[in-house]
Amino acid sequence: MRTEIISTGEELISGAISDTNASWLASELLEAGLRVSRITSTGDDIKALSGTFSEVSNRADLVLVTGGLGPTQDDLTAEAAAAAAEDHFEINPRALVSIETYFEKKGWHMNKINTKQAELPAESRCIINHAGTAPGFYMKINEALFFFMPGVPFEMKAMFHTSVLPEIKKRVNIEDRILRQTFTLFGMPEAEVGKRLKGFSRKFPGIRLGFRAAFPLIYVKLACRCKKSAVGREKEKMAMAGTWVESKLGSRIVSLQGLSMAQEVGRLLSLKNATLGVAESCTGGLIADMLTDTAGSSQYFLLSAVTYSNRAKIDILGVNHKTIEVYGAVHQETAREMAEGAKQISGADYAVSTSGIAGPGGGSAEKPVGTVCIGLAGPGFSRGKHYCFSFTERAMNKKIFAVTALGLLRRALV
Amino acid sequence: MRTEIISTGEELISGAISDTNASWLASELLEAGLRVSRITSTGDDIKALSGTFSEVSNRADLVLVTGGLGPTQDDLTAEAAAAAAEDHFEINPRALVSIETYFEKKGWHMNKINTKQAELPAESRCIINHAGTAPGFYMKINEALFFFMPGVPFEMKAMFHTSVLPEIKKRVNIEDRILRQTFTLFGMPEAEVGKRLKGFSRKFPGIRLGFRAAFPLIYVKLACRCKKSAVGREKEKMAMAGTWVESKLGSRIVSLQGLSMAQEVGRLLSLKNATLGVAESCTGGLIADMLTDTAGSSQYFLLSAVTYSNRAKIDILGVNHKTIEVYGAVHQETAREMAEGAKQISGADYAVSTSGIAGPGGGSAEKPVGTVCIGLAGPGFSRGKHYCFSFTERAMNKKIFAVTALGLLRRALV
Repeated sequence: MRTEIISTGEELISGAISDTNASWLASELLEAGLRVSRITSTGDDIKALSGTFSEVSNRADLVLVTGGLGPTQDDLTAEAAAAAAEDHFEINPRALVSIETYFEKKGWHMNKINTKQAELPAESRCIINHAGTAPGFYMKINEALFFFMPGVPFEMKAMFHTSVLPEIKKRVNIEDRILRQTFTLFGMPEAEVGKRLKGFSRKFPGIRLGFRAAFPLIYVKLACRCKKSAVGREKEKMAMAGTWVESKLGSRIVSLQGLSMAQEVGRLLSLKNATLGVAESCTGGLIADMLTDTAGSSQYFLLSAVTYSNRAKIDILGVNHKTIEVYGAVHQETAREMAEGAKQISGADYAVSTSGIAGPGGGSAEKPVGTVCIGLAGPGFSRGKHYCFSFTERAMNKKIFAVTALGLLRRALV
Repeated sequence: MRTEIISTGEELISGAISDTNASWLASELLEAGLRVSRITSTGDDIKALSGTFSEVSNRADLVLVTGGLGPTQDDLTAEAAAAAAEDHFEINPRALVSIETYFEKKGWHMNKINTKQAELPAESRCIINHAGTAPGFYMKINEALFFFMPGVPFEMKAMFHTSVLPEIKKRVNIEDRILRQTFTLFGMPEAEVGKRLKGFSRKFPGIRLGFRAAFPLIYVKLACRCKKSAVGREKEKMAMAGTWVESKLGSRIVSLQGLSMAQEVGRLLSLKNATLGVAESCTGGLIADMLTDTAGSSQYFLLSAVTYSNRAKIDILGVNHKTIEVYGAVHQETAREMAEGAKQISGADYAVSTSGIAGPGGGSAEKPVGTVCIGLAGPGFSRGKHYCFSFTERAMNKKIFAVTALGLLRRALV
């Protein structure tokens, strides 16, 4: 079953956005046992679109397409699908009702322009969109089955789960299961990870080893495809492979379940029934943002004081003004006092803090861009540490500073 | 000059990550006058890779490939390129020196596994990697010129600017210029934007109109390709088109330069020489993170108090505990007092605050998920506002809450 994804939109090939729809779909399809063999992005050009549809229809069995179903003049997917299938193009009554119902439900006035969205290839079947105005549809082009979905991520995701996946499952016999384990690593270069895991494939044939760098973390993924009936036996093999990987990577492993650093810290705090306060300077709220991306984080996360100015560090966190005068804002002692202050004002059990130079400006010979001081306070202790990373991009520095700070906290929690 | 991008990596077609390299490259190439016609992603499979290279070499003139140059066993790009060109595969002396130099500079010990990275197709020319271990290379496959770069974003970006783009410019006569303008919109559905701009293409032939939704903002882009000699005349046309678009979209326009909401707020604060304090509950640091993504934000951004707990709202921001008792944490009066508190403790000229329910849990009939109260304080005034959005995803709610708060502040600044 050769499966492909096509993403359409001028914004993709002009580089205005990256294609998060395709990666989401690929991951969902893999979960359902279908490996995607190729992802193609094309612009909003009727010839390029219909050409791509024809071409892919000659080599794939199942094709998922996103984008280009909107009401504007650059939404050409339905027209291109009709052209590729040598079909004509007409108002689909079911699609029209779907759009009208959506507008009614929202209490909105329906524009004439939205009627365009009900024009579909005559041979296609409409898929109702419960989350937006653009109906989806599916049809055969040559021997391949194509599903067309809107490009707006939450509409696409809802439609995939409600209608597309069930339809695929009806038509395709998905017998295989995929077993998986993901390790999260921090603080080891990718080449070193590869070296340590050399010999894996020989030792564990049938289990696929993959790497993914999501700066500054590396994810090591084990995956094994097996028949439903063999799941028990394959699970044992996976467990052995997991133990082997663990023995090779040791203390650089942050999570055995593929959690991010913030999720793992949250999990450990919850286990301990402990709470956290944060004081951020150079990370500018990123630590708090990472922590609060997890639902339920209000159980352990009490406060982050994003104190960009020195005055805020002194007034709010109670950092001694002499400490800043003598050592400067970027110093382990300042960071330690920031963490102490965050712990005290939030009443939390633990606190972590950052002060550093994310760049691109603000560096000096003594304290170059990439310098960060991290403070940590917990029951009965507080300390400050100094690091220097060699990245020049502001966004990278913010990330590695934030994850380093959370990593220090993680070690205090295990 | 037909230009394509190929991204390689199992992590792309398994959906583990989305392809940010391709979008970055497409955008840089467009800047240089080269429009990408297609982006393809394939996995780490020698047959799929060499098949894709052959296929693309038959229709494109210039191809940029990223990924698969690392030292691990799933890095197969160089081997696949050799296979597609029916070339053999050997240690490239220049590549070996490049790797050795990099390791020496870093003071690292070179692993045998890294020598593998110096194996390149015999007919190719090596491109030095100054930012990492994997050398790049370029070569012809059929009539197309292929550039192979590493997949690690900052290595790829550095190599593109230092070596690849200059090499392309030498070989390709890039005569055309691209003129562009981008408008940032907030608070108007895409269909409405399309409706208001209907007739644009008839009115301004030769100028391409594009839309990009980056939730919760919409970017409207005008682009015009012209010969170097015609730039003056085309600039005038673009200005007329820009004025027309402005007249149609009116007050929903956040920026005429395609700035994000946080960048625009930063620009306005700088113009006024004013400073900002923030108090965040439901946005959990995202407002601070958005503001501090801009270098130089320390000029105007003083503090964000991410007060997740009620205690922190009372102790740190000085919210009256009776206000929370009577109205609850999610209320316009609480938000107003939070903003007042943030303004006072930071000593800033303006302050903005959020308190709401991002979900998925925590909602009630009276205050459903999507409810947010926003406080705003400025010279001589403070107020609170109540909004309710109908999204269910936590990440979407955090975003729209943050941008709504910054939008309210923006209106107070213009």
